[in-house]
Amino acid sequence: MLWSKFFIPTLKETPQEAESISHQLMLRAGLVRMLIAGVYSYLPYGLMVLENIQQVIRQEMDKTGANELLLPALQPLELWQKTERDKLLGQVMIKFTDRRGRRMCLGPTHEEVITELVHQHISSYKQLPLILYQIQTKFRDEIRPRFGLVRSCEFIMKDAYSFDIDEEGLDRSYCLMHQAYERIFTRLGLKCLTVEADSGIMGGSLSHEFMVPASCGEDLVWLCPNCAKTAPFKDTDTKQCSVCNTNMQKINTIEIGHIFKLGTKYSQALEAYFQDEQGRLKPIIMGCYGIGVSRLIATIIEQNRDENGIIWPIEVAPFKVIIIPLDVTNSSIMEKASVLYQKLSQEDIPVLMDDRNERAGVKFKDADLIGVPLQLILGKAVQEEGLLELKQRKTNTKISADDSVIFSKIKEAIYER
Amino acid sequence: MLWSKFFIPTLKETPQEAESISHQLMLRAGLVRMLIAGVYSYLPYGLMVLENIQQVIRQEMDKTGANELLLPALQPLELWQKTERDKLLGQVMIKFTDRRGRRMCLGPTHEEVITELVHQHISSYKQLPLILYQIQTKFRDEIRPRFGLVRSCEFIMKDAYSFDIDEEGLDRSYCLMHQAYERIFTRLGLKCLTVEADSGIMGGSLSHEFMVPASCGEDLVWLCPNCAKTAPFKDTDTKQCSVCNTNMQKINTIEIGHIFKLGTKYSQALEAYFQDEQGRLKPIIMGCYGIGVSRLIATIIEQNRDENGIIWPIEVAPFKVIIIPLDVTNSSIMEKASVLYQKLSQEDIPVLMDDRNERAGVKFKDADLIGVPLQLILGKAVQEEGLLELKQRKTNTKISADDSVIFSKIKEAIYER
Repeated sequence: MLWSKFFIPTLKETPQEAESISHQLMLRAGLVRMLIAGVYSYLPYGLMVLENIQQVIRQEMDKTGANELLLPALQPLELWQKTERDKLLGQVMIKFTDRRGRRMCLGPTHEEVITELVHQHISSYKQLPLILYQIQTKFRDEIRPRFGLVRSCEFIMKDAYSFDIDEEGLDRSYCLMHQAYERIFTRLGLKCLTVEADSGIMGGSLSHEFMVPASCGEDLVWLCPNCAKTAPFKDTDTKQCSVCNTNMQKINTIEIGHIFKLGTKYSQALEAYFQDEQGRLKPIIMGCYGIGVSRLIATIIEQNRDENGIIWPIEVAPFKVIIIPLDVTNSSIMEKASVLYQKLSQEDIPVLMDDRNERAGVKFKDADLIGVPLQLILGKAVQEEGLLELKQRKTNTKISADDSVIFSKIKEAIYER
Repeated sequence: MLWSKFFIPTLKETPQEAESISHQLMLRAGLVRMLIAGVYSYLPYGLMVLENIQQVIRQEMDKTGANELLLPALQPLELWQKTERDKLLGQVMIKFTDRRGRRMCLGPTHEEVITELVHQHISSYKQLPLILYQIQTKFRDEIRPRFGLVRSCEFIMKDAYSFDIDEEGLDRSYCLMHQAYERIFTRLGLKCLTVEADSGIMGGSLSHEFMVPASCGEDLVWLCPNCAKTAPFKDTDTKQCSVCNTNMQKINTIEIGHIFKLGTKYSQALEAYFQDEQGRLKPIIMGCYGIGVSRLIATIIEQNRDENGIIWPIEVAPFKVIIIPLDVTNSSIMEKASVLYQKLSQEDIPVLMDDRNERAGVKFKDADLIGVPLQLILGKAVQEEGLLELKQRKTNTKISADDSVIFSKIKEAIYER
């Protein structure tokens, strides 16, 4: 991609509307723009980040044998009346009456719809276990949307649902999802904590939250500074670690994932029964597993940045390399830049070329801001000695070398993680 | 993918709710399920089809230099009041008041939102031309949703928007999109007609519709049976072809794409101005370009099917090959099936293995129904003579041969189009 052909409106100034650092950087790096409070447009660069995150999630979900589908946002309210969750969700749920007089809502989550679908198609133990998931847009009428994509009214979630014949089956599915979540968050460059949590409006017997420490986080968690054990935050009394007796500390976190053992709450309410081996009719045992996909963008930035901007983890980075020719009026430098661009593209390494006629300082600042992991700088040394300069965004280390050394360094950085 | 691990509920009987052949086949082949009238869930197989279609659209859009982004479904109604389209759309637009008292709507299209975005970021002729597009979910409160995905209340569109400094620029952008549409529809296996059309609620000076002949189509078009010239259908008087004077025939079609020269309607209403080379302030000249993405699934099926089921065009097919071992209790046949499955997977050829313990008749019927282009059948001849059977779904031709011949035939069918 050429910068001149890419709609990436970076900002020098920090927008006043942004309260958190990730929100500031998302606006400054041209990832998103606010339409109204809690509602955002993903600009091209932001969408590329989003797609890379979704790719990692899909790969890890598919590895567990889960099947991806796509459920609708429009839902009949009567489905929610059957589980009585219309009352529980209250004003958070966006409701309207359609022109034929039917009460409708926009799905804030999909337990009801998926259970209804499974009810229609699963009737025997032979068809179980089954895990279904989707990556889809949810709607919630937040009273106080905040921090850009962290708490918004229209957001993208990965929601998975497991269907089993018994508690042992649910344990296996729950464990599969738990492990997949660990792999996903590691690949996305996140250090996260797991906390046993309240099941809240979902219901069910057990749940775990995946929490990322971040100064703008609004969810408090007890963390032992000695052994890293966590505990749910329920009251303000200082808690003692159950492992090492140390006084625990209260830290701010952002919730990025939540997994629940639901049991039979939804299958009973919506009559999703199956016949077991003895021919007895039983409610399907369910679990549900969410990841806040759009929120992940903000969270990854909170943990992967410095004073100059974003530092994308390799798997998330839309471009692995940015080529920066310092003087675009110099034809021999531009020829060299073009050869390098072709070569990287041919090797399927996503590359951005800053072909703008801007001062070196502007280009360096923008390259740091938008967080491309590797900067390939073409200055005077290219012409004089045939040397390229490679800067690692994360470590700020630079090397000067010829093409072949630089290329092997690039591949090392991308593939040898 | 193994059939036994794939959530693909095929139906032997034709569901009563389905009025058109494509709708019947979509339900029978386990592509979609209705939640309520006009609202559908994509099951895993349907989602795979949808993603392949989106992939083709993205590739052809990106070739034109267009940038992909993602705009929100939630929109403030005031934006629509500025262009006065809130009145034009009337009850088709889903509206509600949020809990803070703001009048909101669900986007039935995005001219207003994208013009507002461009208004914020484009100020100079140097930043133009620009083409932005998205693949996104739209909402319309249809009074009479019909034919499954052909006319539904929640549907997926590709909508692109071009921004130019003058009419010549708009002509170029319009032509680029027109050509991209031709390539997209050809790759998707569709024979379509282009018709000069009414601009309707979009406004603007010129528009073209892309229409696919289909018996269930509700849009009438005049077509010359002699020279294939088309004309828009405006009245019922028989029209004469302007090229060859033949009496034109009225045919039923489905609209799959519509491109518009919008001019300055939106840029003026929303103050999207730019400075030209002389420093004069001018409204940006716009075009918009839509494709009904979810509707394409139905349309492709209408044109690519026979009495036994769907016949996916190669680019659309989620699986290019289905391996059908006729006796899954025979371990040597299953071993052979497994080796073939591995080999195809290693070559990145998407393959489905029907590992169900079902009668041959059931397997053949399902394979035809779900429309996999190539069927690789392992019957008795595998054991006795080492021969595989390859059936082309489209032509119904079969060959028996050894592995190497069969593999070269498979690659020929997939890559040498």
